[in-house]
Amino acid sequence: MGRLTELRARVALARLTEPGDTEIGAQLARASASEVLDRVVAGTLDSRRLAHYQARLGGLDVDADLDLAAALHVRVVLPGDPEWPPQLDDLGAARPVVLWVRGQADLAEAARRSVAVVGARACTDYGEHVAVGLGAGLGERGWTVVSGAAYGIDAAAHRGALAVEAPTVAVLACGPDVVYPSAHEALLTRIRAGGVLVSELPPGCRPTKPRFLLRNRVIAALGRGTVVVEAALRSGARNTGNQTVDLSRELMAVPGAVTSAMSAGCHEMIRTQGAHLVTDAADVLDIVGRLGVDDSPPRRGDERPHDDLDELALRVLEGLPVRRAAGAGNVARVAGVDLPSVLRCLGQLAVLGLAEQVDDGWRKAAARRGGA
Amino acid sequence: MGRLTELRARVALARLTEPGDTEIGAQLARASASEVLDRVVAGTLDSRRLAHYQARLGGLDVDADLDLAAALHVRVVLPGDPEWPPQLDDLGAARPVVLWVRGQADLAEAARRSVAVVGARACTDYGEHVAVGLGAGLGERGWTVVSGAAYGIDAAAHRGALAVEAPTVAVLACGPDVVYPSAHEALLTRIRAGGVLVSELPPGCRPTKPRFLLRNRVIAALGRGTVVVEAALRSGARNTGNQTVDLSRELMAVPGAVTSAMSAGCHEMIRTQGAHLVTDAADVLDIVGRLGVDDSPPRRGDERPHDDLDELALRVLEGLPVRRAAGAGNVARVAGVDLPSVLRCLGQLAVLGLAEQVDDGWRKAAARRGGA
Repeated sequence: MGRLTELRARVALARLTEPGDTEIGAQLARASASEVLDRVVAGTLDSRRLAHYQARLGGLDVDADLDLAAALHVRVVLPGDPEWPPQLDDLGAARPVVLWVRGQADLAEAARRSVAVVGARACTDYGEHVAVGLGAGLGERGWTVVSGAAYGIDAAAHRGALAVEAPTVAVLACGPDVVYPSAHEALLTRIRAGGVLVSELPPGCRPTKPRFLLRNRVIAALGRGTVVVEAALRSGARNTGNQTVDLSRELMAVPGAVTSAMSAGCHEMIRTQGAHLVTDAADVLDIVGRLGVDDSPPRRGDERPHDDLDELALRVLEGLPVRRAAGAGNVARVAGVDLPSVLRCLGQLAVLGLAEQVDDGWRKAAARRGGA
Repeated sequence: MGRLTELRARVALARLTEPGDTEIGAQLARASASEVLDRVVAGTLDSRRLAHYQARLGGLDVDADLDLAAALHVRVVLPGDPEWPPQLDDLGAARPVVLWVRGQADLAEAARRSVAVVGARACTDYGEHVAVGLGAGLGERGWTVVSGAAYGIDAAAHRGALAVEAPTVAVLACGPDVVYPSAHEALLTRIRAGGVLVSELPPGCRPTKPRFLLRNRVIAALGRGTVVVEAALRSGARNTGNQTVDLSRELMAVPGAVTSAMSAGCHEMIRTQGAHLVTDAADVLDIVGRLGVDDSPPRRGDERPHDDLDELALRVLEGLPVRRAAGAGNVARVAGVDLPSVLRCLGQLAVLGLAEQVDDGWRKAAARRGGA
């Protein structure tokens, strides 16, 4: 069977069904798209949803869909095509029937090393700041940000990637020609210029609440893992988190103030769903990156001069007076260290600039006198 | 052997050694305190630290220590005494030689159901706010806060407990008569009035850096777990965290903004040490509390009227126009749901106040028109 026949049939089936319809997905696993379509039209499909599919037969116009796609430079991508991201096959029967792809980047290539970054639409300035930083940090390290182009965290993550000229992938809950939200027209145009817009809904389709939720499974499936930057206890981002867990991808969440409702969902995911706590792009790549390539050095505080002192030298240091110098015998009694050890330690402390000799006694060096 | 003999010997040994000296702890596991003391005095103790202990013999005055303790109403508590918290025995050879206890509460009773709450001295307003809330929340639930009476998080946790008139335990890194930090004189007085101050250092001893670190093991050992509220990557609170893990107690950390250096240590403990993320007292008791008594109900977001709608009804709801009403057949085509189901769902939606009939058509009810 030719690709065009299969393509036309899948475009038609995408019109007749809603995204993530596992009934049609199961049919497509057993038969070609044109066979499945024929059975819908003939009323012979063995499915309890047949009547639902048939309710939309009246509005079907595959030629119009393909003409519009061509006019908008939208590529129709089928499972198995070179631009089809193979990781979407992990969705099983919920795999998209077809993808509408629009933009300069190759979807499969852009999504090969990618992380989903999602979160609240009504995010805080803090969440926006963190999302921009994550998008830029991942982009700088050669990783692609996948998100949903929504208000708030999604847009901030895309913008961070765009700021470092990294490709980014926006998965839409509407047709590839629909600008939603309309205020993001410029953002969507910028994403198309350096990355791609992806939709499983045919041209003209409006976003609906179920479509937003079902779109989330595509975001979760494209990335090696999902980072939730901010999320209320109930939110679409947590839905994406659940999809991520269901797909055995890595779930990550950014912490925030426990007083912020917009971080409550993130904390709950870490507490109860085993989400990894991540604070920046380096943390994310510690989870999803390639071992030895993307991993970051351990975090360290500042080194301090007395870090390498042994226990006895520390006790002698703490036993030294701050102002009036004390003899070594007195230091030995205060520190609880025998005299020969005290004399050895005092020499060591003097070399490190931590102790100073004054007349016949010892005291802490000037720079040390402030510390406890 | 009489308790007084043992008590006097332990007071002397506490003078000759520093807290957490496992060498002396091992000796005390094999012999009585007076036997160990006799060997130190005679120079026959089989220990590489003998000379260190002997360095302090000159300053020993057990009667003076006991007189001062009596004058200050400080109780000298030995292992096995009714007021000795048995959980301290988990410290093994690092168990305190003796405890100096000062305050109205019984230490063993107060510490029986207790949690350590610790953190940065240079904490943020956020950390202070959270620590006060944790102290009060734990106190209200009948749990005792153990901390170190330091500036910042420690003081805030104690204050939260005191605010709800719950006993709180402050473990000092100095003698029981030393007011440190001096600005906390009023706080320490309030803690004594409703709780207890605990020290393993004899009267008059000043706090030193090693003593702060060794004090932390007592804080960690007293509580069922330790909550770190704020901590820099390097901090004393992280030391208490490490001691908590070493003692197989529960380690918990409060998240904060990833942009805050004072939360970086908390995040690192969650990321790399398996610390539990906790956001409030209820979370803490989910970890350390008694099952079925202290555990909290699962967190839920607000219930919404369409929570119980099935998938078809949701699709019909989303397929309804917002302004101009549409006929049921049109709704069926848009929603991809067969007509009989559409009619059934419309009835259900009308009852819930989510859809309304206008003339011969249907649209979303007024209150729903704002939502996506």
